[in-house]
Amino acid sequence: MPQRLDSRDPGFAAAFAALVDARRDSDADVSADVAAIIADVRARGDAAVAELTARFDALDLDAAGWEIPLAELDAAVAGLTPDLRAALDLAATRIRDFHLRQRPTDNDATDAAGVRTGVRWSAVEAAGLYVPGGRAAYPSSVLMNAIPAVVAGVERLVMVTPTPGGTANPLVLAAARLAGVTRVFRIGGAQAVAALALGTGRVPRVDVITGPGNAWVAEAKRQLYGIVGIDMIAGPSEVVIVSDGGSNPDWIAADLLAQAEHDPVAQSILLTTSAAEADAVAAAVARQLETLPTAKVARQSWDDFGVIVTLPDLDAALPLLDALAAEHVELMIDDPQALFTRMRHAGSVFLGRHTPEAAGDYLAGPNHVLPTGRRARFASGLSVVDFMKRTTFLDCGPQGLAAIGPAGAAIADVEGLAAHAASIRLRLEANLP
Amino acid sequence: MPQRLDSRDPGFAAAFAALVDARRDSDADVSADVAAIIADVRARGDAAVAELTARFDALDLDAAGWEIPLAELDAAVAGLTPDLRAALDLAATRIRDFHLRQRPTDNDATDAAGVRTGVRWSAVEAAGLYVPGGRAAYPSSVLMNAIPAVVAGVERLVMVTPTPGGTANPLVLAAARLAGVTRVFRIGGAQAVAALALGTGRVPRVDVITGPGNAWVAEAKRQLYGIVGIDMIAGPSEVVIVSDGGSNPDWIAADLLAQAEHDPVAQSILLTTSAAEADAVAAAVARQLETLPTAKVARQSWDDFGVIVTLPDLDAALPLLDALAAEHVELMIDDPQALFTRMRHAGSVFLGRHTPEAAGDYLAGPNHVLPTGRRARFASGLSVVDFMKRTTFLDCGPQGLAAIGPAGAAIADVEGLAAHAASIRLRLEANLP
Repeated sequence: MPQRLDSRDPGFAAAFAALVDARRDSDADVSADVAAIIADVRARGDAAVAELTARFDALDLDAAGWEIPLAELDAAVAGLTPDLRAALDLAATRIRDFHLRQRPTDNDATDAAGVRTGVRWSAVEAAGLYVPGGRAAYPSSVLMNAIPAVVAGVERLVMVTPTPGGTANPLVLAAARLAGVTRVFRIGGAQAVAALALGTGRVPRVDVITGPGNAWVAEAKRQLYGIVGIDMIAGPSEVVIVSDGGSNPDWIAADLLAQAEHDPVAQSILLTTSAAEADAVAAAVARQLETLPTAKVARQSWDDFGVIVTLPDLDAALPLLDALAAEHVELMIDDPQALFTRMRHAGSVFLGRHTPEAAGDYLAGPNHVLPTGRRARFASGLSVVDFMKRTTFLDCGPQGLAAIGPAGAAIADVEGLAAHAASIRLRLEANLP
Repeated sequence: MPQRLDSRDPGFAAAFAALVDARRDSDADVSADVAAIIADVRARGDAAVAELTARFDALDLDAAGWEIPLAELDAAVAGLTPDLRAALDLAATRIRDFHLRQRPTDNDATDAAGVRTGVRWSAVEAAGLYVPGGRAAYPSSVLMNAIPAVVAGVERLVMVTPTPGGTANPLVLAAARLAGVTRVFRIGGAQAVAALALGTGRVPRVDVITGPGNAWVAEAKRQLYGIVGIDMIAGPSEVVIVSDGGSNPDWIAADLLAQAEHDPVAQSILLTTSAAEADAVAAAVARQLETLPTAKVARQSWDDFGVIVTLPDLDAALPLLDALAAEHVELMIDDPQALFTRMRHAGSVFLGRHTPEAAGDYLAGPNHVLPTGRRARFASGLSVVDFMKRTTFLDCGPQGLAAIGPAGAAIADVEGLAAHAASIRLRLEANLP
């Protein structure tokens, strides 16, 4: 059964603090295993990748082919039903349109002192997309990771995905092709991340690696951070739904279960100002679980990590929302904009009763790769800028250097950096009238 | 003696590739030591911080006081000479003005389908600034780290700096006060990073930690990445200067030495189209080293890591610049803008013969915290957005959901996520006319 809390109860503060601090991430320490895999790939390249793939995925890469041929990607697209092809096209178009609005603008200005400064953005050359095998191999995830890279202007998109037995998910391949991926390697795990980060004979080195994965993949990204860019470390997914007693309990229940069906350690939380609604939602969840095809996973998540909190009013939701800093927040209330304006920390917010998180997961436009586990306090969802970088620039000219150089040299003096000071003063002296 | 290369020599490609791949970062593996320190701070909080500070900095925190009183910061400001005070004020103002231009804009639009989507930016609540002790305790570094946080809107800025013997650098304290820092703890090393990331009784938890540090500090930031946000892992600093034979050899030499004097493993590279200039610069460096107060460090860097490359023309510089992806690039040529437009990877570019990197280090405006060691391929300098995060939002409304919901449910179906599909279809059915 999910946890039930009332914010007016004397023990609430302590119970809620425990909820905020609870970690649902795996505590398995795979760092030594991953370090050994990275060292092996660094030392032996393709031979290490082939051996590790044989061991973990029972796949002979040289026999199966390291890459999935483009023809297989094209065949996957051709094999889509017309309805699904239209749905994926709509999703790709909408995700592209949203991310086009995120492209940053350059900045170039000359100030009163005559000093020109600015920022110029450019794309990274190559990006690697990790796509898990098994349960979490989702075409929507391919679109959400690949399209921002394409919009950023990345020239080379390389996908890796484990294919135990050699067979890839055709929906994943179709989505990859629709998103603009042209190379897909049949590799996964920490060895695939290491191959992308370091480059091997067969696997090209990339500049940024994104995409979800298991504990080994996440740890490999963390260890290789700095050699490549990575997206945020992702933990188990979560949703917080705020309702005011005026929502359809079945809609709330379905939204809570949509989160819960992802993962036994996903978390679904309802904050409601109505005790009657709290009861009705709990009953609706139980009822829907009876027939839900994904009930096994969803029930475990709901029983272990589900929470229903009853509040006196919507103002009471505000500190809870900011403390939870949740990946997804649904505001199923009369004036969602008013509460959204006042809240501060969330990965993505879904406004109003007619905005199920699932719409955002698939095709509304905003990215579904979002910070989890309270990381929205400081982190953001995946975006175009994760595949770009800024170069700043400066042009003093003789006039600008005359204006600001003396102060710069004075600071260099007290920092004891004599050549810094000299590099400014030699020019100032030469430019004396 | 620095390495001398000519791009027309048969062995150049191999020699240059070795230069690009060479790592100047320390290979000391401190990961186990750092993991133990983090675990200790997590388990024992203040007691661990106090013990580690006594051990590594020979400082009794309880006797000396954990924090440096604000009065001491004020006294440091009052103790500045008028010239230095004016120089630091000019630097702070210019850095602030530049970073104000970097503040991101929100985005909010409703499309033809009736779906409202957007992005809202907000600042993190608290940031921690690491300031090293010893040689690298620079007031300019305090300004460059603290001012972007203040411009972002961060409410609480906490600085940590080791003070072996209890004495802090008054210039660092003055810069901290001018930049808006109000709390400074006398702690350093991995234990200070852990205290900021996890929070202890005395040290408040922050959301983002920035600032340079030694191998232990860098490793602590890497291990705690994901619990807090961090800036890019920084390696030894570097400059690449491009000249066309028309620059003053003494200016080039001073700029090369300004880089070299930072660190024995800093790297200064000259790319010149003139063999005569190459010789003249080498001679000028040798001459300047005879009297340079920082000659010991600068000479070691120049002898061990300095490189002079002779090129047939400026076009030949372009692939070398992109391969090096250097932290700092100076274009001391007639038309620097033309080359800048064509190059792609660099942390910060200094245009023209009158723009010494030192002007950018101190007060031109752009940040001096920049990606090193080829990381400019994918990483950017410190900016206002490193202290902010994005929340995306979505409002479908009945009309928007009617337009895009069916396609979303179709994708949910093939992903096998039944509750996702149900959360959309329940609403679509209820909204049927």
